[in-house]
Amino acid sequence: MKTRNIKLVIQYDGSGFYGWQVQPGRATIQGEIAGVLKSLTGQSIIVNGSSRTDAGVSALGQVANIKIQSPIPTENFAKALTDRLPEQISVIEAVEMGEDFDAISCTKTKQYRYTIYTGRNRPVLNINHCWHRPGELDVNAMNVSAKMLIGKHDFKSFASAADQRQSSVRTIIDCRVLRDGEYVYIDVEADGFLYNMVRNIVGTFIEVGRGRWRPEYVEDILAAKDRSAAGPIAPASGLCLMWIKY
Amino acid sequence: MKTRNIKLVIQYDGSGFYGWQVQPGRATIQGEIAGVLKSLTGQSIIVNGSSRTDAGVSALGQVANIKIQSPIPTENFAKALTDRLPEQISVIEAVEMGEDFDAISCTKTKQYRYTIYTGRNRPVLNINHCWHRPGELDVNAMNVSAKMLIGKHDFKSFASAADQRQSSVRTIIDCRVLRDGEYVYIDVEADGFLYNMVRNIVGTFIEVGRGRWRPEYVEDILAAKDRSAAGPIAPASGLCLMWIKY
Repeated sequence: MKTRNIKLVIQYDGSGFYGWQVQPGRATIQGEIAGVLKSLTGQSIIVNGSSRTDAGVSALGQVANIKIQSPIPTENFAKALTDRLPEQISVIEAVEMGEDFDAISCTKTKQYRYTIYTGRNRPVLNINHCWHRPGELDVNAMNVSAKMLIGKHDFKSFASAADQRQSSVRTIIDCRVLRDGEYVYIDVEADGFLYNMVRNIVGTFIEVGRGRWRPEYVEDILAAKDRSAAGPIAPASGLCLMWIKY
Repeated sequence: MKTRNIKLVIQYDGSGFYGWQVQPGRATIQGEIAGVLKSLTGQSIIVNGSSRTDAGVSALGQVANIKIQSPIPTENFAKALTDRLPEQISVIEAVEMGEDFDAISCTKTKQYRYTIYTGRNRPVLNINHCWHRPGELDVNAMNVSAKMLIGKHDFKSFASAADQRQSSVRTIIDCRVLRDGEYVYIDVEADGFLYNMVRNIVGTFIEVGRGRWRPEYVEDILAAKDRSAAGPIAPASGLCLMWIKY
């Protein structure tokens, strides 16, 4: 049987999982999908995900590719997987690609959204998908900071120490802060992200939004190339991978 | 110390709990609140909740009253409880009432909302707070049925057999079906509800909305006074107690 290269678009509520990547004895998104593929095909298939999202991080547009020998028609693939996955995970699209498509290396840009709830009362029905941080935020000041991050920069100050990648230079295509009632969203599109980069940016923007740091201070943080210059890391629950462009 | 009678307004995500009512060895909303009150005051306090919501049912406006001897000022009470409760539960209001106030017997009317998601893809970020039922629903037809339930009726056909209460006569003040994009909401306000009454009404309205039953058939169902005449019960996840009027 011919080996097919199938691109999957995947959505998940990350709150009950130990992140994307397979870990022995722990429920992960990659592990759940690989488990279903194994039961469907009998094969051990690598689910090559574009983003290794952390524990508690959700996704509306994760992308993975799988190399698979299976008679299941591509148009039935998404439903066949979703029907067998836990209800916190859904495969919304399956497309057959050329053999060279790789979900990681072919990524052009991706967008993350970080959600903050600023209202007084705990948002009990959404607590796993936002950061509850009561109190006003100056969205205009935060947007001044956001504009300064756009472009090609060394983001070392925004990378957690665990990041092992050689270069910390990335290009942020767009970065903006939006308000919708008591919700504040921070959208960041880039050609790639360092470990914890969005959550460290958010922690920094919060210091600007509450008036502790002036907006222009993010330029000093970038120049410092030192994680301790930036704000504290924001919690994982507010982070969601929105889409990936190829 | 004087015994105070305090009314609490409580919000919760019911998806991780075995319902409102205390059960030995199981996490319940009432149990969590009683546990915090015990640790705060040293007293075993009855949390007298207006509605015994089932496992998986959420609330944005549950009301309870507690009789308590405590020096904590009423204005600090909601925060003191919320800070010590699991993040799925929040006490948004605490008000000192006269000694005769009883959250159950003083209830005038209450409203439940049932949320249906009709889109094709599983709503992974909201799966615990709706019923995912893909496919079009005829909201106009459902509203014809909804109007027929308004008023004082014997709702025996919509009560699960486990209901032990003597009379199955209740008054529905308002009942309507709303569409917002791919979400459909069914709002029911009544002076009281039989066991599983809203979920049985929803299961019936679904049969109307998908065109299997004509809207007027709900009159026959009411007249039958027989649970088997109505539609199948809708899942708990879609149900939310919105508010209670006194």
